[in-house]
Order: sequence, then structure tokens, then C-alpha cells
Amino acid sequence: MAANKKARSNPPYELLYWPSIPGRGEFVRLAFEAAGVSYKDTANESEDGVKAVTTLISPDSTGTDGNPPPFAPPALRVPGEGPSGGPLLLYQTPSILSYLGPKLGLAGTNEAEAQWILSHTLTALDLNNETHDTHHPIAVAKYYEDQKEESLKKATDFRENRIPKFLGFFERVLKGNEKGEGKFLVGDKLSYADTTLWNVLSGLLFAFPKEMEARKGDYKLLFGTFYESVKEASGIKEYLASERRKPFSMGVFRHYPELDRQ
Amino acid sequence: MAANKKARSNPPYELLYWPSIPGRGEFVRLAFEAAGVSYKDTANESEDGVKAVTTLISPDSTGTDGNPPPFAPPALRVPGEGPSGGPLLLYQTPSILSYLGPKLGLAGTNEAEAQWILSHTLTALDLNNETHDTHHPIAVAKYYEDQKEESLKKATDFRENRIPKFLGFFERVLKGNEKGEGKFLVGDKLSYADTTLWNVLSGLLFAFPKEMEARKGDYKLLFGTFYESVKEASGIKEYLASERRKPFSMGVFRHYPELDRQ
Repeated sequence: MAANKKARSNPPYELLYWPSIPGRGEFVRLAFEAAGVSYKDTANESEDGVKAVTTLISPDSTGTDGNPPPFAPPALRVPGEGPSGGPLLLYQTPSILSYLGPKLGLAGTNEAEAQWILSHTLTALDLNNETHDTHHPIAVAKYYEDQKEESLKKATDFRENRIPKFLGFFERVLKGNEKGEGKFLVGDKLSYADTTLWNVLSGLLFAFPKEMEARKGDYKLLFGTFYESVKEASGIKEYLASERRKPFSMGVFRHYPELDRQ
Repeated sequence: MAANKKARSNPPYELLYWPSIPGRGEFVRLAFEAAGVSYKDTANESEDGVKAVTTLISPDSTGTDGNPPPFAPPALRVPGEGPSGGPLLLYQTPSILSYLGPKLGLAGTNEAEAQWILSHTLTALDLNNETHDTHHPIAVAKYYEDQKEESLKKATDFRENRIPKFLGFFERVLKGNEKGEGKFLVGDKLSYADTTLWNVLSGLLFAFPKEMEARKGDYKLLFGTFYESVKEASGIKEYLASERRKPFSMGVFRHYPELDRQ
């Protein structure tokens, strides 16, 4: 029920991101949902909400209300917190999460923990980006079909070298954080690093089901404890069962069987 | 002289990064140098200093002194600021910069500015990473020569689409920040976003001299004001004239004439 517990003492946070796909907006959604704090997901909540997103990244914009222009979605709008009491507009997923983290109780209990949480989040997002590049190794604006040959090479290296490197790293982080008992990357409570890594793992299981099935057993804490624990966390469990959670489709995480282990 | 003004009231910051190349460690070095705060650059300062870096990223490490293991260099060690009064160890360039930023006076004057500075830094580092991928589009662990064909395609897209997208964005940020008069991305003083973007531009001028020469004129604030201003900033100017500044060579920024505009 946490996701329905509208915390009205918070400002009316607004997420600006493409509709219908989880994408990079999902990392921000999961933070709100884990904290049980309400937010407006503009492009998913109204027919022409996507216009707010396209306006935001207009190639002519020099910013609005004293805020700089965002390079790309997601962006976060917070009424009353910006220059001269107007809206604050932030962009870049890790920046949005580092801003929200302490306010949502998802950034640990001291400065060191807050920085480690940001560091692990950045590493999980690097893995997210490398996953994207398996189907777009040459040009982000071209079709997968126009870079398929290169994708096959890139995905092979990603599966054979990068996936074990990243998963092995996070397994060691969990092992080293004894207080977390395998459930938390940092300390003994949920952070936005946990929800971020969880979503990337979830995406990898969707995009590379055979590869992940073959490797899961090597990372006992990551898949035996962490993954299931975050999935069942207060707020997250309810969110995943709701219609607000969009399925992976043709965003960062795509299931092209030819790119998976054969 | 700022670079020699050793601020002994600061903890003895230690940068752990590969020797001889600027690389991702350079973004951290530039922050210290701009602030005139001394730091130990272990791998560059002693014969076997590189061992401290390789030990740090040992594939068996679960962390040291209560700190998590770093995924990759750079890392920052701060004696006395970690768990139980031991050393604090941070990794991931944006996390290190967001930690140091307020302490070095390079993170703006309020929360909004601090977040924008982090956001722009992340965007400049995205450009840094995309530059790296022009010579390593398929596999980071393979030689350029083994992915040269794909590099030619990737670099073409990067030069034609990505460079103007990023440069156009930062030109608009400078234009929108009237207080900065073209010299600062955020507010009216130097931040680690400025030094970070400056280093990426510097690397692009090295890696793609013909492409950049042809495009520079389109970005009057970026190359007419910003680039020259940061280069002359207190601390930075002295650093660039010193032996501590390593030339670009075979790191992220490489000059392969065949990847440049023909």
C-alpha cells in the first residue's frame, strides 16, 4: 500500500519522461515508489503529456525560469524550489536521484554512505548504457537492423566479458557489506542504488534470458537474496503489480534472441 | 601560483589513477588544481605507485576498511573521513567530484546550482565516454586495430551527429546563464562542471582537429569565451604549464587521422 500513501507534505514532484516505456525514467519512478511518495508522471498520465517532454528538449531552448535546458529526459520538476521561488528543473538520472535520495530516505545515513550509493548507482547505470549499446553500437539514431552485424559482435563481448565483470563486482559489494545481509548494497536499509541495480538486473533478465540463466548461479547473493528482496520491498512490490509499471519492450532493454547466448 | 598554495587545513587527499595519461583522473586533478588544494597523485609520484591502483581493483576484493571495492579507477582516498575514523574511499568520477565540489568551492552557491553542476558534469562525461567509443565501439578489451572498420562508422556518426548535439547544448547552457557571461556554465563562478567540460573540449581538439576546426565557429561562447577563460583560470593556467599535466596520447582521447574529418 506504500505506493498509495500519498505524502502530501512533499512538493508535487513531476517526472518528465517518454511515455509507455520504463527507460531511464524508471530509475526515478522506482525511488518514488519505494519511498511511498506521490509524483506526477506527466507523459503517462495525459494524452498530450508527451508535449511537455518534447518542449523541454527543444533544440533552441536556453532554459526556462532560470533553469538550464535539459540535455535529454528524464527531467524532474519541483515547484517552488527553483530560482526566485519558481520551479526547479533537474536533468540527468544520477543528479535527479542524488537530489531526491536524502529527501526520500533512500540515501543512507551519513555522507560516506550517500557517496557510495551514488557511486554504485553510476556503475549500475553504466551497465544500463552498455546494454543499450549492444543493439546500437554504431549510431543511436539509426535502426538496429542497420547495425545488426556490429550488434552481434558487441553483444558477444558484452555477454562474455562485461556481464560477468559487472555482476561479479556487485556480488563483491554485497559480500563486503555485512550489515546488508545480501539485501542492500550499502548499510542496512534500502537505497536508490538498490532500486537502480534491481531494475538493470530485471532488464538484463528480459533482454538476455539464456545468458542470465546460465550465469545466475555464480552470483548467489545477487540473485539468491538481493534481487528477490528488492522485488518484495515495501512500495516496490505494489508498484510492480500495478499498471504504472510498464513492461520492457523496445527501449534500452530489448529481447533480440540472436543477441542472446545461442 | 594558486596550485602551489598548499591548503594544509584540508585532509591529505589522495587520487588513485593510472599513471602517465590524463584519462578520467584528469577531471579530479583539475578540480584540485583550480581550487589550489594539494593532493597526492600516487601512481604518478612514485615508481611503484601503480600497485596501489591495481590492488584497489583486485577482482577478489570486497573492499577495505569498511569501504566498498571500487569498480574502476579513479578512486579518491581521504584519511580519517571513512567508517570508524579510518580512510574513506570513493570511486566513480562524478561521485568523487560531487563529494569534493562543495569542499573545494567548486559546486556553486546553493542546492539548485550544485545539482545543475553535477548534471552538466555528467553530460560532459557522457561526451567523454562517447569519444572513447569512437575507437572502441565493439570491445573495450580489444585493440583498436581489431575494430577499426566499426570505428570508422562510429566516428563518422559521432562527428556528424553527436559532436554538434553536445556542443550545441553547452552553447545554449552558456547563453542561458547570463550571469556567467559565457565564462561559466552555472552562476558567476568557476565550478567542476567548467573544468570537466573544458577537459573534454581540450581532448576533442586533440582527437579530431579537423572536425573541431570546421565546427568551432558555430559555437561562439563555447570557443570564443568559455574555453579560453577556463584555460586562463587561477590554478588551471599554472597547472597546464606544469609537468603535472600529461599530454593526451593513447587514452580516451586519441588522434587517429583516419577517424577525423577527411
